[in-house]
Amino acid sequence: MDKLEALKRLFPGKVDLSESERLRHGKDEGYPEARPVLAVVYPEGVEDVQKALQWARAWGVAVIPFGAGTSLEGHLLPLGEAISLDFARMNRLLEVRPEDFLCVVEPGLTRKALNEALKGTGLFFPVDPGADATLGGMAATNASGTTTVRYGGMRPNVLALQVVLASGEVLELGRGVRKTSAGYDLKDLFIGSEGTLGVITRLTLRLHPLPEHVHTLRVFFPGVEEAALASYQVMASGLPVARLELLDELALRALNRYLGAGFPERPALFLEFHSSTKEALEAESALALTLMEEAGALAVEAAKTEEERKRQWEARHQAYWALVHLYPGHRFAITDVAVPLSRLPEMVRYAQGLLREMGLTGNILGHVGDGNFHTLVPVLPEDYPKAEAYAEALVRRALELGGTCTAEHGVGLRKKKYLPLEHGPALDWMRKLKALLDPEGLLNPGKVLDTP
Amino acid sequence: MDKLEALKRLFPGKVDLSESERLRHGKDEGYPEARPVLAVVYPEGVEDVQKALQWARAWGVAVIPFGAGTSLEGHLLPLGEAISLDFARMNRLLEVRPEDFLCVVEPGLTRKALNEALKGTGLFFPVDPGADATLGGMAATNASGTTTVRYGGMRPNVLALQVVLASGEVLELGRGVRKTSAGYDLKDLFIGSEGTLGVITRLTLRLHPLPEHVHTLRVFFPGVEEAALASYQVMASGLPVARLELLDELALRALNRYLGAGFPERPALFLEFHSSTKEALEAESALALTLMEEAGALAVEAAKTEEERKRQWEARHQAYWALVHLYPGHRFAITDVAVPLSRLPEMVRYAQGLLREMGLTGNILGHVGDGNFHTLVPVLPEDYPKAEAYAEALVRRALELGGTCTAEHGVGLRKKKYLPLEHGPALDWMRKLKALLDPEGLLNPGKVLDTP
Ligand SMILES: Cc1cc2nc3c(=O)[nH]c(=O)nc-3n(C[C@H](O)[C@H](O)[C@H](O)COP(=O)(O)OP(=O)(O)OC[C@H]3O[C@@H](n4cnc5c(N)ncnc54)[C@H](O)[C@@H]3O)c2cc1C
Ligand SMILES: Cc1cc2nc3c(=O)[nH]c(=O)nc-3n(C[C@H](O)[C@H](O)[C@H](O)COP(=O)(O)OP(=O)(O)OC[C@H]3O[C@@H](n4cnc5c(N)ncnc54)[C@H](O)[C@@H]3O)c2cc1C
Repeated sequence: MDKLEALKRLFPGKVDLSESERLRHGKDEGYPEARPVLAVVYPEGVEDVQKALQWARAWGVAVIPFGAGTSLEGHLLPLGEAISLDFARMNRLLEVRPEDFLCVVEPGLTRKALNEALKGTGLFFPVDPGADATLGGMAATNASGTTTVRYGGMRPNVLALQVVLASGEVLELGRGVRKTSAGYDLKDLFIGSEGTLGVITRLTLRLHPLPEHVHTLRVFFPGVEEAALASYQVMASGLPVARLELLDELALRALNRYLGAGFPERPALFLEFHSSTKEALEAESALALTLMEEAGALAVEAAKTEEERKRQWEARHQAYWALVHLYPGHRFAITDVAVPLSRLPEMVRYAQGLLREMGLTGNILGHVGDGNFHTLVPVLPEDYPKAEAYAEALVRRALELGGTCTAEHGVGLRKKKYLPLEHGPALDWMRKLKALLDPEGLLNPGKVLDTP
Repeated sequence: MDKLEALKRLFPGKVDLSESERLRHGKDEGYPEARPVLAVVYPEGVEDVQKALQWARAWGVAVIPFGAGTSLEGHLLPLGEAISLDFARMNRLLEVRPEDFLCVVEPGLTRKALNEALKGTGLFFPVDPGADATLGGMAATNASGTTTVRYGGMRPNVLALQVVLASGEVLELGRGVRKTSAGYDLKDLFIGSEGTLGVITRLTLRLHPLPEHVHTLRVFFPGVEEAALASYQVMASGLPVARLELLDELALRALNRYLGAGFPERPALFLEFHSSTKEALEAESALALTLMEEAGALAVEAAKTEEERKRQWEARHQAYWALVHLYPGHRFAITDVAVPLSRLPEMVRYAQGLLREMGLTGNILGHVGDGNFHTLVPVLPEDYPKAEAYAEALVRRALELGGTCTAEHGVGLRKKKYLPLEHGPALDWMRKLKALLDPEGLLNPGKVLDTP
């Protein structure tokens, strides 16, 4: 019996060998290459994951966990023979304990479906990357989003994980409590490990009370740098801002075309305040406005209805697709650096200057309250290397300023080359950890680190 | 030449062999046993730490890092031959970058000295365990404190670490940015590792803007359970409370005797709100008061001056010493469980009932906003086993409720026996990590995990 035959026997009704599905699972949303996986398996429980790993060990074939496929750095591209473990059928909300501000989910549940299911509990899960990613994928990439400036990214919001190791062992990491100092922090070792150390099969998530009062603003500036400076002023004030996003002219133009949004086409900050009292909210918004005006704001618009508020954030989340729509037939390079807060305006200026200098168009937007912004660079396929050269220059400058090559998208294949610069000798110890936890190199090999 | 001779030659002017210092370094603040270390070394830089480890490897002698010696679980007790590395001479504030909300410190700096030195920058470091611990010790134990409910404990507030491994290698872990997804999270593996995986020689810390407006309250209740319930209501409201501490009658009585504090001797919540606007502060405090009254509050006192505010929190931090003062000649068992938030009132009731049942006196206080409380149990030396039995029962109940055996004090020697129950098979992987990073078992052996 050959390995595919064995796989089909092991997983009746749970294997897809079609060309299209094999190819869809061998690519992500941002890497310019795709290769088919050997097969797609749809586990329905932790035992299926154990069985798949047993099969993988027996046949020496790699395993690549698959969430929603929205990652950007080559996370899902098979480098050799590999099967994809797609968690689409493990997407249940297993337990909600509103009184403990937590819930337990399977890894294939998406963040939108989770928040939909939480309606009526008065609680929400805050981490919101710009795509409807799965919670397993979000933990695996250490994702963050527009509300991270207030509520944190995945680390503080994932209290516990169940993971299956390459050996098939099932581990429970962390506890459903707010604080623990009981031994080594294995949970955070698996968060951000991109499917290379273990397969996440269950997550215990921290939930937050829905804010009673919300105030949402759009503030427009003469230039991107002024907007970046204003965002820095807001951070320095200690205001408990819940969202603080930068969008440049091009982003707004693309959104106006794509969604008919009718935004002024000026560099903007999209802000939100969350509060449990109306008075607190008003006072905080007023102080923010003063800071904005001092920083040179041209105009301010407030969302007047819940509907308008939703539209504003939906638009922010659509910024990538709007640009894709504006540039048909193009490829897109997406940068993801973060720098120490005070270097953000300088970094944004550098990015703009470099784009101009290299004759590239590029759209700057991002989670500036965290010192993190993206450039989306649309290029014709033949110009892709130029966009990559731009992205590389940006990383090198960010590292010089004490920043990081990736704030939230992760390493995948593309950022591997920067890790020696960012981590120095610590990188060797990442390799040793990988060798300890996955000695045969079966789990998403060649991602994060080179395979030996 | 024998090993001590070699040590003295290696570290002229940096070794103390006196009986008293050797004994002082072989004990902590809470474990009932003390044993002298072989010698105390005072490193003055990272090279000294590397040299000490080289010596340790050569002579097969263990090394126990020492901060302020305020830990509680047997963290510092040598089990075999060991030297103590005391960081008292590595206590400099190396760099403050207010514009980036961060600073860089040596591990021997204490939290109070740091905040003293930050005066005038408009920033502060929030983590405040009830003792004037060192930042290195606080990172090593994953400490938290009264403000953790708002600002988080050590993990989110330590951005980067320099550590020296048993091999002498120096690693830089993490970056001075708010977010990064660049590879495996080694920084958090060392936070909370209690000197067993590496020696921390430098820390990059996140600083926070000092709140413009602060409101500090003391609210008194008929019983501890009502107070615990009220604290739960505050958490459920989503109010951005900055401190939320429970103190029982006995704690207040002890503080009145010790400091002449003049507090009503009733179970109390000490609360604080931090805000950047006066209006926000007033609205939030008002909502909190309504919640307190609904939960059965008897009386409310507000700190009217900055002086009074400082006295209130100083008193909270003195609660342990006040009890020690009230019970001369006694030993003290200190518990440290945390449970999922909704189980806190039940857990507190269980603790009170058990104390009564066992004929013990005990003082209940803690960071209840995080589901974490302590019992301080004063006993005569011959009754210490009874206090330990109480502490053990409490841990077992907390674990049954999905809690943790230690929220913030760490494992040391005393909590080792609970780790199999709390972690199951994951504990084996902690052992493997220890063996990988410290194959000769030189770093604080027998703490957190049993030495093989
Ligand atoms: C338009 C757009 C906007 C984006 N905006 C953001 C943003 O704001 N913030 C942000 O952080 N990211 C953003 N991203 C990137 C992406 O959405 C995130 O990385 C997301 O967390 C990936 O989740 P996924 O479910 O799609 O995972 P996938 O892409 O399917 O997988 C990602 C990685 O996780 C691994 N993985 C998946 N599931 C598991 C599992 N159960 N166990 C172990 N490993 C697993 C995979 O092997 C792979 O290495 C954006 C992407 C797009 C296309
Ligand atoms: C009255 C009182 C109240 C307390 N309240 C709290 C509280 O509210 N919250 C809380 O978290 N804790 C509390 N504690 C416990 C204690 O203060 C903390 O655990 C503190 O973090 C210990 O710091 P230290 O500098 O005293 O470390 P030490 O006691 O000297 O050492 C603690 C551990 O850290 C290791 N270590 C020290 N320095 C380093 C280094 N540079 N590199 C590697 N390892 C190192 C040691 O080997 C040891 O294992 C309290 C203690 C007391 C006595």
